[in-house]
Amino acid sequence: MSINSVDHDIRDIKLADRGKLRVEWAERAMPVLRRIGERFAKEQPLKGLRLSACLHVTTETANLVLTLKAGGADVALCASNPLSTQDDVAAYLVRDHGIKVFSICGEDHDVYYDHIRAALAHRPSITMDDGADLVSSLHMIALQRFDDLTEPVRRWAESLSQNERRELVESVIGSTEETTTGVIRLRAMARDGVLQFPVIAVNDSLTKYMFDNRYGTGQSTLDGILRATNILLAGSRMVIAGYGWCGRGVASRARGAGARVIVTEVEPLKALEAVMDGFEVMPMTEAAKIGDVFVTVTGDTSVIREEHFRLMKDGAIVANSGHFNVEIDLDQLASIAGGPPRAVRDFVAEYRVNGRRIFVLGEGRLVNLAAAEGHPAAVMDMSFANQALAAEYLVQHGRELDRAVHRTPEHLDQEIARLKLESMSIGIDTLTDEQRKYLSSWELGT
Amino acid sequence: MSINSVDHDIRDIKLADRGKLRVEWAERAMPVLRRIGERFAKEQPLKGLRLSACLHVTTETANLVLTLKAGGADVALCASNPLSTQDDVAAYLVRDHGIKVFSICGEDHDVYYDHIRAALAHRPSITMDDGADLVSSLHMIALQRFDDLTEPVRRWAESLSQNERRELVESVIGSTEETTTGVIRLRAMARDGVLQFPVIAVNDSLTKYMFDNRYGTGQSTLDGILRATNILLAGSRMVIAGYGWCGRGVASRARGAGARVIVTEVEPLKALEAVMDGFEVMPMTEAAKIGDVFVTVTGDTSVIREEHFRLMKDGAIVANSGHFNVEIDLDQLASIAGGPPRAVRDFVAEYRVNGRRIFVLGEGRLVNLAAAEGHPAAVMDMSFANQALAAEYLVQHGRELDRAVHRTPEHLDQEIARLKLESMSIGIDTLTDEQRKYLSSWELGT
Amino acid sequence: MSINSVDHDIRDIKLADRGKLRVEWAERAMPVLRRIGERFAKEQPLKGLRLSACLHVTTETANLVLTLKAGGADVALCASNPLSTQDDVAAYLVRDHGIKVFSICGEDHDVYYDHIRAALAHRPSITMDDGADLVSSLHMIALQRFDDLTEPVRRWAESLSQNERRELVESVIGSTEETTTGVIRLRAMARDGVLQFPVIAVNDSLTKYMFDNRYGTGQSTLDGILRATNILLAGSRMVIAGYGWCGRGVASRARGAGARVIVTEVEPLKALEAVMDGFEVMPMTEAAKIGDVFVTVTGDTSVIREEHFRLMKDGAIVANSGHFNVEIDLDQLASIAGGPPRAVRDFVAEYRVNGRRIFVLGEGRLVNLAAAEGHPAAVMDMSFANQALAAEYLVQHGRELDRAVHRTPEHLDQEIARLKLESMSIGIDTLTDEQRKYLSSWELGT
Amino acid sequence: MSINSVDHDIRDIKLADRGKLRVEWAERAMPVLRRIGERFAKEQPLKGLRLSACLHVTTETANLVLTLKAGGADVALCASNPLSTQDDVAAYLVRDHGIKVFSICGEDHDVYYDHIRAALAHRPSITMDDGADLVSSLHMIALQRFDDLTEPVRRWAESLSQNERRELVESVIGSTEETTTGVIRLRAMARDGVLQFPVIAVNDSLTKYMFDNRYGTGQSTLDGILRATNILLAGSRMVIAGYGWCGRGVASRARGAGARVIVTEVEPLKALEAVMDGFEVMPMTEAAKIGDVFVTVTGDTSVIREEHFRLMKDGAIVANSGHFNVEIDLDQLASIAGGPPRAVRDFVAEYRVNGRRIFVLGEGRLVNLAAAEGHPAAVMDMSFANQALAAEYLVQHGRELDRAVHRTPEHLDQEIARLKLESMSIGIDTLTDEQRKYLSSWELGT
Repeated sequence: MSINSVDHDIRDIKLADRGKLRVEWAERAMPVLRRIGERFAKEQPLKGLRLSACLHVTTETANLVLTLKAGGADVALCASNPLSTQDDVAAYLVRDHGIKVFSICGEDHDVYYDHIRAALAHRPSITMDDGADLVSSLHMIALQRFDDLTEPVRRWAESLSQNERRELVESVIGSTEETTTGVIRLRAMARDGVLQFPVIAVNDSLTKYMFDNRYGTGQSTLDGILRATNILLAGSRMVIAGYGWCGRGVASRARGAGARVIVTEVEPLKALEAVMDGFEVMPMTEAAKIGDVFVTVTGDTSVIREEHFRLMKDGAIVANSGHFNVEIDLDQLASIAGGPPRAVRDFVAEYRVNGRRIFVLGEGRLVNLAAAEGHPAAVMDMSFANQALAAEYLVQHGRELDRAVHRTPEHLDQEIARLKLESMSIGIDTLTDEQRKYLSSWELGT
Repeated sequence: MSINSVDHDIRDIKLADRGKLRVEWAERAMPVLRRIGERFAKEQPLKGLRLSACLHVTTETANLVLTLKAGGADVALCASNPLSTQDDVAAYLVRDHGIKVFSICGEDHDVYYDHIRAALAHRPSITMDDGADLVSSLHMIALQRFDDLTEPVRRWAESLSQNERRELVESVIGSTEETTTGVIRLRAMARDGVLQFPVIAVNDSLTKYMFDNRYGTGQSTLDGILRATNILLAGSRMVIAGYGWCGRGVASRARGAGARVIVTEVEPLKALEAVMDGFEVMPMTEAAKIGDVFVTVTGDTSVIREEHFRLMKDGAIVANSGHFNVEIDLDQLASIAGGPPRAVRDFVAEYRVNGRRIFVLGEGRLVNLAAAEGHPAAVMDMSFANQALAAEYLVQHGRELDRAVHRTPEHLDQEIARLKLESMSIGIDTLTDEQRKYLSSWELGT
Repeated sequence: MSINSVDHDIRDIKLADRGKLRVEWAERAMPVLRRIGERFAKEQPLKGLRLSACLHVTTETANLVLTLKAGGADVALCASNPLSTQDDVAAYLVRDHGIKVFSICGEDHDVYYDHIRAALAHRPSITMDDGADLVSSLHMIALQRFDDLTEPVRRWAESLSQNERRELVESVIGSTEETTTGVIRLRAMARDGVLQFPVIAVNDSLTKYMFDNRYGTGQSTLDGILRATNILLAGSRMVIAGYGWCGRGVASRARGAGARVIVTEVEPLKALEAVMDGFEVMPMTEAAKIGDVFVTVTGDTSVIREEHFRLMKDGAIVANSGHFNVEIDLDQLASIAGGPPRAVRDFVAEYRVNGRRIFVLGEGRLVNLAAAEGHPAAVMDMSFANQALAAEYLVQHGRELDRAVHRTPEHLDQEIARLKLESMSIGIDTLTDEQRKYLSSWELGT
Repeated sequence: MSINSVDHDIRDIKLADRGKLRVEWAERAMPVLRRIGERFAKEQPLKGLRLSACLHVTTETANLVLTLKAGGADVALCASNPLSTQDDVAAYLVRDHGIKVFSICGEDHDVYYDHIRAALAHRPSITMDDGADLVSSLHMIALQRFDDLTEPVRRWAESLSQNERRELVESVIGSTEETTTGVIRLRAMARDGVLQFPVIAVNDSLTKYMFDNRYGTGQSTLDGILRATNILLAGSRMVIAGYGWCGRGVASRARGAGARVIVTEVEPLKALEAVMDGFEVMPMTEAAKIGDVFVTVTGDTSVIREEHFRLMKDGAIVANSGHFNVEIDLDQLASIAGGPPRAVRDFVAEYRVNGRRIFVLGEGRLVNLAAAEGHPAAVMDMSFANQALAAEYLVQHGRELDRAVHRTPEHLDQEIARLKLESMSIGIDTLTDEQRKYLSSWELGT
């Protein structure tokens, strides 16, 4: 196998001092991961293992990576989004901890995939993914579907021998996946019978999606919108596309900020829940006419498209907080706009449609990462505690698992919640013997 | 089998006029059930079937019963709680529709079980239960565990031949179960290997528990407390024991009414969610000292007990909104109180502990049914649409199902949500072909 | 002056036992009034004074009346609304405390005004009013505008000599007024130069309107609607006419109950505030088409009228929570409806307009008093503490005050708030000397 | 009078391009000011007038300044806070519009006051102030209280002849004041009998304080905290000192973000309102022990001081959103901390007290301006519409007004609200003739 001769590719090593301070700042708010890291340092559960992570390169991810390293792992890290890398964090991880980081904020599509290639060239036993770009690239290589690969990966894949390609995928014990979008993709792979190793859907842990997707995305999406625009949310009409965990997080926080919230949905059950939660629900073609701000969090493509752009008011603001930048159809917008967009503020591009201005934030990418700092450390604490424990679990049990998408074992989930409460000094009740017995009996009635 | 010679046992047939008006009032708000009833009238899916329902005898239940009758069923109805029967509704069902109702508000324990006996003596092919008293009694009979039966049922069971007893249980195709408590009991029965027929856990339908348990219990619990006490909720400290779907419904509504809400829990995950939702969380021994109003919605026993009563402030109000009246340990309260409680308002009993007054509402039974009218018809519309469709499903597929607790098939759930939205004139989006394809593919990445 | 030979007119003295329990129940939640009553009992500030109160005859009013009596007053009490009297409370006040109560729930217009006549015939030195019916009647008599008087009062007024009439008004030191509507009327009287004595607008105390109008009306209006209808508020569209203190209370609680709230207003500032608070704002002609429930709290007349009724959906529910039953134009509704309304539930009248059903609650009178129990005692505690202290203040300073509408002195307001916090065991900060000095200086800048 | 030979003092003229874009961005959200500016351009109400404004130099202020200029004024602008200047905005105003701007972000105390001196040297007929530093300096000069002046102003004042000093103050027709703190200072000046000209308290306009103080401060305070720290608000304990309009704005938004909010107050009425709004209320000495984040919005000094710092948990975050940086006693904190603070993030200083870390944001200055962009343009639209109309009003009526603090005339207030609603396409109701008559009559009763 061709050896990757460079061991990092980052913006500027001189940013490391600033990165160090910021990583330490996040660490303050990650007590659960800290506890796991302390145990890992003693027990070395990942000793000698190569691990490649494709994650948003943020201060929280840095703490995860350092936890994994404390557990004995040799970690390579690439970005899961071209715009979300915090270059100072990357510099710090390289300079002070020797992590193999391949990630530059604003990298183009080719560099993005060349960094994925570098992470694969690390020949990992465990992969960590956020959106499944790493794992799907690996499978394209294994399946020899070279035409579906992006250029830098394709070239490298073709340079490998068939044996090397086989070894690459066979040496992976298992993977973890961080986000809904990735889980959807991986389930599709499992359904199509092509998945080559077990995946732990960290996203499906209660301590992940109930907190990260809801409280994390809820807060940080508004944060991104405010940093990009400084608009007043109170009294504004905010349209939220999607009422999954992320969507209800954003809707709840938007209401909490005084916005008049409209939800759009495709599933009757979720739509009904939104109504009962007190939100207006309507099709996007109606919402498009009256919304001041639009946020997509569906996990699907072209949720806001030409037919909607044409209906929008002058000054409408459009942002995405779903994983991929496909939810807002920017190609259609560009084609109906008179000309190229004008940059009017950092992260704000102005399009003109029929004389009306439409403002797109962060190029339609995750607005919380593009224009703000992503999820607060306190939620990532739990998500990444799941990642760390899932990696340990894969080492211990990965070889026994089916080639399918699995949930994190429930006892890990409860343990993470317990540690979090403990770190907040919050006590709860415990069942009495009588109560435990009552719950398991069926004889006692009215 | 001994034939039940009377075909109803109710308070007073002369209440029927009032019951009629009230049942019609509820019908207004039950458009989904109405639509199902119209189809049932044509298709007669329950034709000739004997069905015994053990449910709260309310205006909404009346509409369910009439829907089942429209579908061809011969229905017997008994109460699932001695205090929750609306006597005028019972009268109306008997007088105008010939339903076999056995239920009187305030009936004692013996009469309560004698009415269950009458429902069993109807020899049902389908049972509908709410708390599992009917089904567990039936199983005690089948298992010949006569000592575990309440007196009136025991006597009757012993009067039957072994053959009759076997036939009684064997003729049941399946049952539905309405509430969390019942589902917990039935799962315990399945786990112990004693369950004799399949059960559809209507409670586990999304259109049931997400709406009924949350919005229904949330609103009606406060409603019951207000009718019983007329206290000001704004600024009061309300302690909610349990943060399941019911608990979060009550907590959300209590906050919406201006209360300062404290949640107690035994599960770390739920406790953590409550904290992140902005509620205070603490053990009951701490909450007991500062709460103005306590509500139990745990599904467990003795959640508020001697050690807590002793800590309460003068004037503390204690209510239960869980299914059974076991969550508040009234025996312990009575034993530490100086004497018997004093009735100070309808549904309010005053106990004195160490010179301090503790007020218990509705004798610790479901406060929304004891002191108010139970869930609004609009939520019961969906719960009972599930019941009606589950009954039809059991007729069609019951013989193929395992002797286990099953969920309502998902397509029924989605259909109910769709009908509900339609009745509210709320439109939603539909997936485009491109979107549908995107969701099922895994090849498209960043 | 003709002497009123009977000293009470109530429904049934035998209801007194029940009234006693209920008045005691309210007393629990009125610690501020209790403290004032204890001082009054010692100091006797109202000794020998005749006082006529025209108030809603509720359990809370009973505690006010007993406080006034403890202070030495000889109290007559009539109702300020024909439907709001709690007959058991009236009975208790008469039987156990010798209060001269003239008030029967459901009394007709003539009896209502005959009771006002009886309260005037008590020849009060202090009047307490709630809506200004008592005071305006008294002024009509003094001004000899007999044609503007309702029959029973007119006949009595004509039977008095001119001297007696003059003495009647001249013996009044001053009055208090409880509600916004009354204050508006009294200000109009002052502006027209006809007001004969000073009035303390208890309604304008911060400890009154910020709490009673907002938290009291907010909660009890929903309570009244729920008791009358048992509808589900979550997901319903509730239209609130008026965004004054009452309106914002109702709107806030409606949202807290999950309703989708629409506000209508006539003042731009209040409308804008409603928008910024996250509510939809639109003209009533638009709201009428989409509302499920309508509540008027404007203090104005014909807020919902023919043009609106004609637009409403089948099943619309219409209620009033403003002081007078003029906000919903029932005459217009009756005239466009096919026939007389049908009583379908207690407090619910069904009208048919163009084949669509419109349900009016409590005959358009204050829904919280008609269908529920009015404001909780805990808010009335502060309102009535204001009444008691205002009466004392009038005795001490009334002769010095202009014939105008005055606010309660601010120090009384702060004192009431302080006592309330104390009763809730809530501590607050006190200014340091440095802080006090800072606040009064202007020299210290950036 | 000594002539100021330079006509601006700013960071860097080359920032003007960026400033231009940002000022235009704010303009989008200021439709009311735009409408006023269009009229001003035609009517020239400020023609030939010199106007000196001491305001936060932000994008919104730029739009106000341009409106005043459109009305004919010759405007000088200095900062009202050393840290709040947006240097690119200052550059744009100088380069493209010839405004005399004296303001540099991060200027020290001496430069800050030298800039105030420059604004005074402009010899204004109208002053606009935000915190009253400009007006109080002017009065110190007029009163010859040179020792109370800051150095650069003192030197200049002494260089003027007595005549020049008298002319300086006599040429001022009147001033406007933007903020609560300034109004408190100016009222103190009026009370002490030293105020030399009338002041319009723009802060007291309903369209100002109800929106700017509440919705503006509410949102932007959280925005500043998040940009500085990226902490998770959900589940955190946030302590808000002060429950005035600003405080309730922050408290409401903090709850809307999922925080567990504690309010501290010194006034019983406000404390009680906070409790009834569902917040915890306690003295700061108790709150200090349990808070995660502290925000002061009291307008008073040393609200958080040594006794509180000593009680705080490790990691406590302390921010101020009141006008002056006196609310957090940083001198005391520095003296009890082991050494100088460590900069751990932009706008975050770490102090160590007893081994515990306390993080102070933005040096205790207005966190929304220090760490974020201040109030959104949409609220400043109304505040600054008040400023523009108040300036016009002073030109027309200033000479007739007392030397006191006046409110903006109510009709201007209503007009601004009307224009704002119009710009949002929101319609409201208008009173019918019958309704108008009803409101002014007192004869119509029950």
